[in-house]
Amino acid sequence: MNIDMIEAAAERLKGHARRTPLLNSPFLDDIAGRRVWVKPECLQHTGSFKFRGGWSAVSALDPDVRARGVIAFSSGNHAQGVALAAKLHGVPAVIIMPSDAPQMKIDNTRALGAEVILYDRAGEDRAAIGAALAEERGLTLIKPYDEPQVIAGQGTTGLEIAEQAAEAGISQADVLVCCGGGGLTSGIALALEAKAPELRVRPVEPEGFDDVARSLRSGGIEVNNRSSGSLCDAIITPSPGQITFPIMHRLCGPGMVVSEDEALQAMAAAFERLKVVAEPGGAVALAAALYHADQIEGDDVIVTISGGNVDASVFVQALTRFGGQT
Amino acid sequence: MNIDMIEAAAERLKGHARRTPLLNSPFLDDIAGRRVWVKPECLQHTGSFKFRGGWSAVSALDPDVRARGVIAFSSGNHAQGVALAAKLHGVPAVIIMPSDAPQMKIDNTRALGAEVILYDRAGEDRAAIGAALAEERGLTLIKPYDEPQVIAGQGTTGLEIAEQAAEAGISQADVLVCCGGGGLTSGIALALEAKAPELRVRPVEPEGFDDVARSLRSGGIEVNNRSSGSLCDAIITPSPGQITFPIMHRLCGPGMVVSEDEALQAMAAAFERLKVVAEPGGAVALAAALYHADQIEGDDVIVTISGGNVDASVFVQALTRFGGQT
Repeated sequence: MNIDMIEAAAERLKGHARRTPLLNSPFLDDIAGRRVWVKPECLQHTGSFKFRGGWSAVSALDPDVRARGVIAFSSGNHAQGVALAAKLHGVPAVIIMPSDAPQMKIDNTRALGAEVILYDRAGEDRAAIGAALAEERGLTLIKPYDEPQVIAGQGTTGLEIAEQAAEAGISQADVLVCCGGGGLTSGIALALEAKAPELRVRPVEPEGFDDVARSLRSGGIEVNNRSSGSLCDAIITPSPGQITFPIMHRLCGPGMVVSEDEALQAMAAAFERLKVVAEPGGAVALAAALYHADQIEGDDVIVTISGGNVDASVFVQALTRFGGQT
Repeated sequence: MNIDMIEAAAERLKGHARRTPLLNSPFLDDIAGRRVWVKPECLQHTGSFKFRGGWSAVSALDPDVRARGVIAFSSGNHAQGVALAAKLHGVPAVIIMPSDAPQMKIDNTRALGAEVILYDRAGEDRAAIGAALAEERGLTLIKPYDEPQVIAGQGTTGLEIAEQAAEAGISQADVLVCCGGGGLTSGIALALEAKAPELRVRPVEPEGFDDVARSLRSGGIEVNNRSSGSLCDAIITPSPGQITFPIMHRLCGPGMVVSEDEALQAMAAAFERLKVVAEPGGAVALAAALYHADQIEGDDVIVTISGGNVDASVFVQALTRFGGQT
């Protein structure tokens, strides 16, 4: 896992993934007490950064292997990223999804041409289901985060952040990243280590699912007590990965933790001030920048909005409770 | 009014205005029956394309004149664009706004440092109010659309569309533009005439406020019967401008008209499929592409989302009525 793999992924993604802009608003700066720069990966194809990793992994396969198809397990965003990447490569995709994933993510994954298989998040082991199916049908398993080509794809976000930060005149800043298993976090950290070492990545998680923050503190892989029951469905993976954790441990600053209400409030802020749609899990980094500013230093902070695949009812809840407050 | 003025405006806007991306979604393509490309100017500074014209006009003033300040009348988006442009140039701004403008737009304009003066849209003549104040205080009046440097600024959107269409391999298409007084429409039309003549601009308006569509048909400037009472507050100007209309008459294809409900439904589609926030008036072009596809020809259509400054309650209404339908 190194910067060369990320740059090779960037080459493969050229003309396929979007270069998302870097947004800001004087109103958000006022709340945070510093300049807030937002990388809205909700504007990426399929509505999250996961298309980068999906495309990177599918495009890196040997053509004969790829032709037999791919399989992925995912709460929804990795599912859509892999499904679209497979479709655009003209190969079949099987996606294992939890039965409590947002209906929109399940529907979208099917509409993108994938075969969707649902499982019970509390009672079944998705890794085992995926491995068995992969062997049975000759599919290549594309893991959601603990897979070098997936991390390389997500890391292309970091290459863009390095360029855009330089253009914006940002010399030093924390880069807050919405963190589940750590694919995006470790990918961005590796890219910034090489391209903008004055930018430091910090993972952000929802309360009750702060396995990465705790792992960074203890130095070993910690596991969440719960595996469901959060609005931040995109980022409630049980623990950091075997590949992602050592990278995060080496490169990241301390993790940050926000409440679900803060994530909803940040969704309303992104609606009002940036005109982008964030899902709860995709809004935790913005929430950390806006509502935990005392844990951050410096004149600038950069945050990812990692995805925007949220059911209308949840978005309405965010606007009804927190609209007009920023 | 020519392409040189637009290119000069683009030079002045460099590093100040955002180059918004060109978005698309296979789900929107399915609805429209052709590829739909979306230029989301809601992601522009102040949440609408109006920042381009505001910056263009303020930056083009003689420094001594500029220092005395500027004045504008606007339902809200031009107000914010001029207010921020003035603030960033360090000069005062007075903004004349209708008292029934969305509260968010009034609040934002004040927060951007402008002095806001409210007037009654039905009973008072905003042009007269603006002209009197301008003379009294030595302010330069920056009209919302019938002003060459404003049109030049809006036209920079067209320069970007020409480049992005070429990158996307679009050889021929209608370009649907949300149209009020015609500043954005005529600016884009002039830019495309020079840079991508195979792209044809067509103005889109809400039912009951289709002055431009009727003017294009009759060949003379037509006026709306009503001057208020639409959710599409951004684009219900009474008639096309003296400068904008001849440009539109020479270069534009037939106008299109959509209902308020179609605009709200397009807002829900933009939420679900593009993850951007459109205001009702900013969604009419997308509504035309999605729900009046029979009036369009060709494999591709390009649409602007001209702004995203919508109160949360209106957005909730769009999602509650039309969420989950795309």
